[in-house]
Amino acid sequence: MIRTAAILSTGDELTTGRTVDTNSNFISDKLVAAGFDVVSIMVVGDYPERITWAWHEALRQADVAISTGGLGPTADDLTTETVAQLSGRRLILDTAVADRIRQMFEAMGRVMPENNLKQAQFPQSAEIIANALGTAPGFRLDLDTEHGRRHLIVLPGVPREMKPMLEEQVIPWLQQNRGSNDIYLSHVFQTFGISESALDELVADCVAADEGRIAFRAAFPQISVRLTVHGEPAVVPQRLEQLAARLRERIGTYAYGEGDTTMEATVGAMLKRKGLTLAVAESCTGGLVGNRITNVGGSSAYMRGGIIAYANDVKQQQLGVRSSTLETHGAVSEPTAVEMAVGVRQRLNADIGLSVTGIAGPDGGTPEKPVGTVCFGLATADKVFSRRYQLWGNREWVKLLASQVALDWVRRYLLGIDPMDSGILKR
Amino acid sequence: MIRTAAILSTGDELTTGRTVDTNSNFISDKLVAAGFDVVSIMVVGDYPERITWAWHEALRQADVAISTGGLGPTADDLTTETVAQLSGRRLILDTAVADRIRQMFEAMGRVMPENNLKQAQFPQSAEIIANALGTAPGFRLDLDTEHGRRHLIVLPGVPREMKPMLEEQVIPWLQQNRGSNDIYLSHVFQTFGISESALDELVADCVAADEGRIAFRAAFPQISVRLTVHGEPAVVPQRLEQLAARLRERIGTYAYGEGDTTMEATVGAMLKRKGLTLAVAESCTGGLVGNRITNVGGSSAYMRGGIIAYANDVKQQQLGVRSSTLETHGAVSEPTAVEMAVGVRQRLNADIGLSVTGIAGPDGGTPEKPVGTVCFGLATADKVFSRRYQLWGNREWVKLLASQVALDWVRRYLLGIDPMDSGILKR
Repeated sequence: MIRTAAILSTGDELTTGRTVDTNSNFISDKLVAAGFDVVSIMVVGDYPERITWAWHEALRQADVAISTGGLGPTADDLTTETVAQLSGRRLILDTAVADRIRQMFEAMGRVMPENNLKQAQFPQSAEIIANALGTAPGFRLDLDTEHGRRHLIVLPGVPREMKPMLEEQVIPWLQQNRGSNDIYLSHVFQTFGISESALDELVADCVAADEGRIAFRAAFPQISVRLTVHGEPAVVPQRLEQLAARLRERIGTYAYGEGDTTMEATVGAMLKRKGLTLAVAESCTGGLVGNRITNVGGSSAYMRGGIIAYANDVKQQQLGVRSSTLETHGAVSEPTAVEMAVGVRQRLNADIGLSVTGIAGPDGGTPEKPVGTVCFGLATADKVFSRRYQLWGNREWVKLLASQVALDWVRRYLLGIDPMDSGILKR
Repeated sequence: MIRTAAILSTGDELTTGRTVDTNSNFISDKLVAAGFDVVSIMVVGDYPERITWAWHEALRQADVAISTGGLGPTADDLTTETVAQLSGRRLILDTAVADRIRQMFEAMGRVMPENNLKQAQFPQSAEIIANALGTAPGFRLDLDTEHGRRHLIVLPGVPREMKPMLEEQVIPWLQQNRGSNDIYLSHVFQTFGISESALDELVADCVAADEGRIAFRAAFPQISVRLTVHGEPAVVPQRLEQLAARLRERIGTYAYGEGDTTMEATVGAMLKRKGLTLAVAESCTGGLVGNRITNVGGSSAYMRGGIIAYANDVKQQQLGVRSSTLETHGAVSEPTAVEMAVGVRQRLNADIGLSVTGIAGPDGGTPEKPVGTVCFGLATADKVFSRRYQLWGNREWVKLLASQVALDWVRRYLLGIDPMDSGILKR
């Protein structure tokens, strides 16, 4: 029975504050989604006795231990050696792996340094875990210890190499060797415009405890909802589908996507499907909305561009905002937002004009318009929307939240629902 | 003698992949800068036996153990209770802390829930560590164990609350109670435009091993260089200054700042000092340059705004790029970059016009202009600069690197050195 896991991260860069250990987070997310219990995460520097300590504790606590890091070619890469020593196995050179490493160097027009041969050595009877993207493969070692049957899984520390190895080789192996027929499947919804506690309440009675499990993950500004179902293989896929359908209906338009996706990717796909173009007029967000839209590959199909109108006279000259509007209502006002949206739509010849103007802080707030006051506008050929919101947080937080509301407005408009009705955030 | 430290992070969100543990990174960075050796980082979920295991291992391994998380008011917040138990101390209600928590709730117009009183309980003889920003204070407990004198430091998990508590209370206490007269001081340089290995070579003979220690930290796209000096209090400040001066001269204009700063803050401060204004014309970066400039509070003093010219006809109509230029040289070319910079400068009435146009990928590359080809332009009243670079990485990477080069061009121009000479990145 493989039920519990421990995660080890090795490297001086992790214990000296030079690098944030994101590998452990990625691995625990995938393990938990696959139904395993992560007992502990241990991070140690490149010292044999510290690495040995971590492996000993991992083998004591958990059925499987997954380590990242310490597989490089240099003297301070100690993982393979340490594992061989603590498991009492000899190191053996795998000639096929050695040849492959040599070929990778040749393909780059370089001669393989001799110390790279270290990456072709594995403890006797280890199963090699192929690495398509780097020179260092990983390996798995099955041990019978005083604590019971144990599985040691060793992966490289480079996230780009480690991630596909974990997802394509390690997780499937763990699932097949779980020692139980149960399988775990999960489905994720990405939401915006509702708080974690309100979301919790909304879906509370949707899934009974014996049907499946719901977990929330707040990654500001969105909150993801993960539904996990486990049980017999014959039953689980259908039950997941049924429960996901229930959740889909309940969460409604708070969900902007399912699976690994972003608000900007969702909005982009909708614009593309409808053959519509977008232009943005940004004041307080300073280019962030445009930046996010253009983070999506192929966004030139629907993104015309935008005007970053930071100074008031740029709002007038580049967007046609009237000086009387600025004088009467101020730069942070719904009338200004409307004229910005209408102006950028016309001048950049787009189907949809989107605008944001607000006070990101820390200065510039007044009693009537405190820091976090942000007005949005959306203009099409025949409609105009605008609304004022009271957002919160520091400068970057306000900007990020404002960019999310702006993108959500486009999504809501394209769904045919009132963008002004977006979520709990409106004032 | 306090020399070694262990770090504990507690919370189910950390072992289920919902949250990346950034606290441990922050704490190890500060500990290492203050001259302590971080032996291990342990992360466990909210289970008493797992938290107890982590504390036991920490006390065995290290002179001081610093924990974050598990200080909330709910039933799954177990840190204080666990520490009391393993140290054999009773929990005692601190009435002053209880009153303060009650007042914090009253100030928000709310009644304190009874379970918040839990946050006013501490193990007997614990030293309270004040929390200016939240309801849960931390505490320190000094224990004589079988392994020797040990110090348990317990902090809340909310980074915003934990960070000032660590920097203002914990680190100074550790330094005072190190049990040695030695002090540790450090100085940081932020650099751009040079690789870590080239930087290493550049400064290699600058600081002898017995004078101080140099550590690099790559936080793409910048690399920071930290100089740490330790020794007797009478000697260290002056030696730090001397070595920093040596490094400053050696690193030269690769360093865009010292201490905790960003490229956009450096550029902003320079513009402000010189009373100059900036406008940006962005194609492939899609607003990222503007976004970064406006991440700096008070940027309205020098930021006029910008044009996000994603579509070619927007480059023509909003920036005045000539169709003949686009036809002859293409949108990604130095002549187009020049006309974008000149155009945005004139139209937005700025002292400096800055432009970026390139191929961020994954599509759009050609043999002549592969993905990562980016052209930059900078225009002033009497000068124009332009150059083509070959950048690398995925779409977001190319955009981020391009925004950094663009900002670095402004910095270099304002320093009076040729912006086109920026670093190792040019083609």
